[in-house]
Amino acid sequence: MKKNIIVGQSGGPTAVINGSLYGVASEGIKNPAVGHVYGMINGIEGFLQGHYMDMEELEQSGELEAVRTTPGSFLGSCRFKLPEDLTSSVYPELFQKFEELEIGAFFYIGGNDSMDTASKLSRYAQSINSDIRFIGVPKTIDNDLVETDHTPGYGSAAKYVASTVREIAIDASVYDNKKSVTIVEIMGRHAGWLTAASVLARKFEGDNPILIYLPEVAFDQDAFIKKVEKALETTPNLVVCISEGINDGKGTFICEYASDVGVDNFGHKMLTGSGKYLENLVKDKLGVKVRSIELNVCQRCSSAHLSRVDLDEAVNAGIYAVQAALAGETGKMITFNRSRSNPYELSYGTADVNIICNAEKAFPGEWITEEGSDIGGEYLEYVLPLIQGCVEVPVKNGLPLFAYRK
Amino acid sequence: MKKNIIVGQSGGPTAVINGSLYGVASEGIKNPAVGHVYGMINGIEGFLQGHYMDMEELEQSGELEAVRTTPGSFLGSCRFKLPEDLTSSVYPELFQKFEELEIGAFFYIGGNDSMDTASKLSRYAQSINSDIRFIGVPKTIDNDLVETDHTPGYGSAAKYVASTVREIAIDASVYDNKKSVTIVEIMGRHAGWLTAASVLARKFEGDNPILIYLPEVAFDQDAFIKKVEKALETTPNLVVCISEGINDGKGTFICEYASDVGVDNFGHKMLTGSGKYLENLVKDKLGVKVRSIELNVCQRCSSAHLSRVDLDEAVNAGIYAVQAALAGETGKMITFNRSRSNPYELSYGTADVNIICNAEKAFPGEWITEEGSDIGGEYLEYVLPLIQGCVEVPVKNGLPLFAYRK
Repeated sequence: MKKNIIVGQSGGPTAVINGSLYGVASEGIKNPAVGHVYGMINGIEGFLQGHYMDMEELEQSGELEAVRTTPGSFLGSCRFKLPEDLTSSVYPELFQKFEELEIGAFFYIGGNDSMDTASKLSRYAQSINSDIRFIGVPKTIDNDLVETDHTPGYGSAAKYVASTVREIAIDASVYDNKKSVTIVEIMGRHAGWLTAASVLARKFEGDNPILIYLPEVAFDQDAFIKKVEKALETTPNLVVCISEGINDGKGTFICEYASDVGVDNFGHKMLTGSGKYLENLVKDKLGVKVRSIELNVCQRCSSAHLSRVDLDEAVNAGIYAVQAALAGETGKMITFNRSRSNPYELSYGTADVNIICNAEKAFPGEWITEEGSDIGGEYLEYVLPLIQGCVEVPVKNGLPLFAYRK
Repeated sequence: MKKNIIVGQSGGPTAVINGSLYGVASEGIKNPAVGHVYGMINGIEGFLQGHYMDMEELEQSGELEAVRTTPGSFLGSCRFKLPEDLTSSVYPELFQKFEELEIGAFFYIGGNDSMDTASKLSRYAQSINSDIRFIGVPKTIDNDLVETDHTPGYGSAAKYVASTVREIAIDASVYDNKKSVTIVEIMGRHAGWLTAASVLARKFEGDNPILIYLPEVAFDQDAFIKKVEKALETTPNLVVCISEGINDGKGTFICEYASDVGVDNFGHKMLTGSGKYLENLVKDKLGVKVRSIELNVCQRCSSAHLSRVDLDEAVNAGIYAVQAALAGETGKMITFNRSRSNPYELSYGTADVNIICNAEKAFPGEWITEEGSDIGGEYLEYVLPLIQGCVEVPVKNGLPLFAYRK
């Protein structure tokens, strides 16, 4: 008898996480070895409460195609950590539900925390000799998953950051007869991948952003002020890009110098205001006009800066996940293997999800310049293929047409 | 003998202010009645210091076409207020420079403050019997100039706001099993035109943003909290849009309840943080998860959300300005006259710049719903034609290619 499959989304949204959903659903619907395709509403947390939907209805109504180019998590998301203790009653409860729906394979689209879910479920399955297969589909604008060249979501977010910083620099330069500093704060708690993409904003050598700071380098406030002062001599409208997670290298985030911060469900420190803190610091020390800009959530969910390469790869990751499960794989995450950058060549594979969920891939030190405030090395070669191509998002009444759950 | 013309940009940038520059320059270069076309660097302020360029060089190098789709002020801008006293020495100084360059017509692309410059120069010209013609070309995302149906820059900014709020609402909804409030702060000190455009973000009736607050309506903090509480009952992930300039109706901005603010060159109060203030207020009163997002400067300079109608009209305003000057007009601003909305029909005209520089066009009260927290009436009919059509911005290496001064 053919088994059904179920797919869920977890963690923060990206511009292409629905591309992977589309990939899993369309392949599941099309593949003769698959029965029904279900979608968990609000991930594992919603599913535990009995919330799921039939993905075939979307295909029948013609909406599945719009899901492909809709940013955010169409199925809804959650930040729900399964218990470390595999003897917890939540596991038999979940597997009971899987059995009721005759689930043969489970797909979870997300980042580290979601891979943690896939890891626990696959280990529990092994412990009870269940043959349900658990596959993780990578997704994160942070690009910090190990065992894969990059992750879906990063290319579009990098393109958003590069285009937006380029526009911010133009905006900042209109009064180029007056000195000013613009500090742009970009997402990234521990890994500077997304902030690094701001280097692409330069229209020519020596253009803004002049200074770029990642969490991977200990941030020295005095050295920063000296560099800003020096840079203002040649670039009167200075743009500085920083990761939200810049820190002093001793475990204290720069924003913590200003105020206390809370902790989220997963124990991550909740960050706000490194840019604001530095704005006040520069104003105080140098007395020039300063503003700080926190790039808003659109850096993870803008459909206007979709990279075609990124979206295609997100869709393919979903398709490949279904095929891998059907081939018998479980406890794996789909990975991207790059054989060359120019011309760009990529193949898909799998890696042990247990390795991935407990690690973070930092931005390579050799791609950060010696002074710690610029990006160099082979980063451009690495990132350029990932931001190529535009995606035509359907338009209605002059605005992007997005799919939503009715 | 043929006279030369000079064009400048002033005030904040928009996505299409360079479209008008392109219009003036291309018409000036093409029109046999015009000699050379000069561009003031950093507006009247830079010109006083002797900074200008030859616009024909741009055409010869092929860069003028890229100027058309480049956001921001290609020539640089200024916020320089000419003295009220027309006997000030700055006037003969300027006219001496005009004479040296054999200027026959002067074009200034900007908002109210720029029209103030055009007004003073044309009045001074009259007082000394100079035949130099002074024409203002409208530009402002605020859409607050009188005597014109709308202003270039508004359509693209409205499209940015609508698309971005739609994406923010999607991002906010991914954890739709938890209550949350997202407050989006949109530019607009006195006029709510741009914030009103957030109504376009709704994908269906009853969709976010549920509450929209403009500066035209006195903001009542208690009533606001009650409305938020009520809206959360049916919309767990509530999105609220506010103008930066919301105020209590008695002359105090809401952000001033939190902190003191400064004053810029023109005596405008410098605003920051109405959204942040309300974020804390909601957190304090209702204890739900709240975040505030200040839309960044891209609301005025994003090339990714260019409206084709807006850009075409900006270019046409520049072309029409040159033709109006050649026809003998002076002391005028180019105006847009709409004869119908569906199908959209527009013609160009001129109005006395003296009337325009001292007035602001508020968002019509009849388009604000009775309760003061939503947009209705004929606003949709008004705004929809202005956001139609996409503009293909040239791309290089996956990113928008912008013109810049070498």
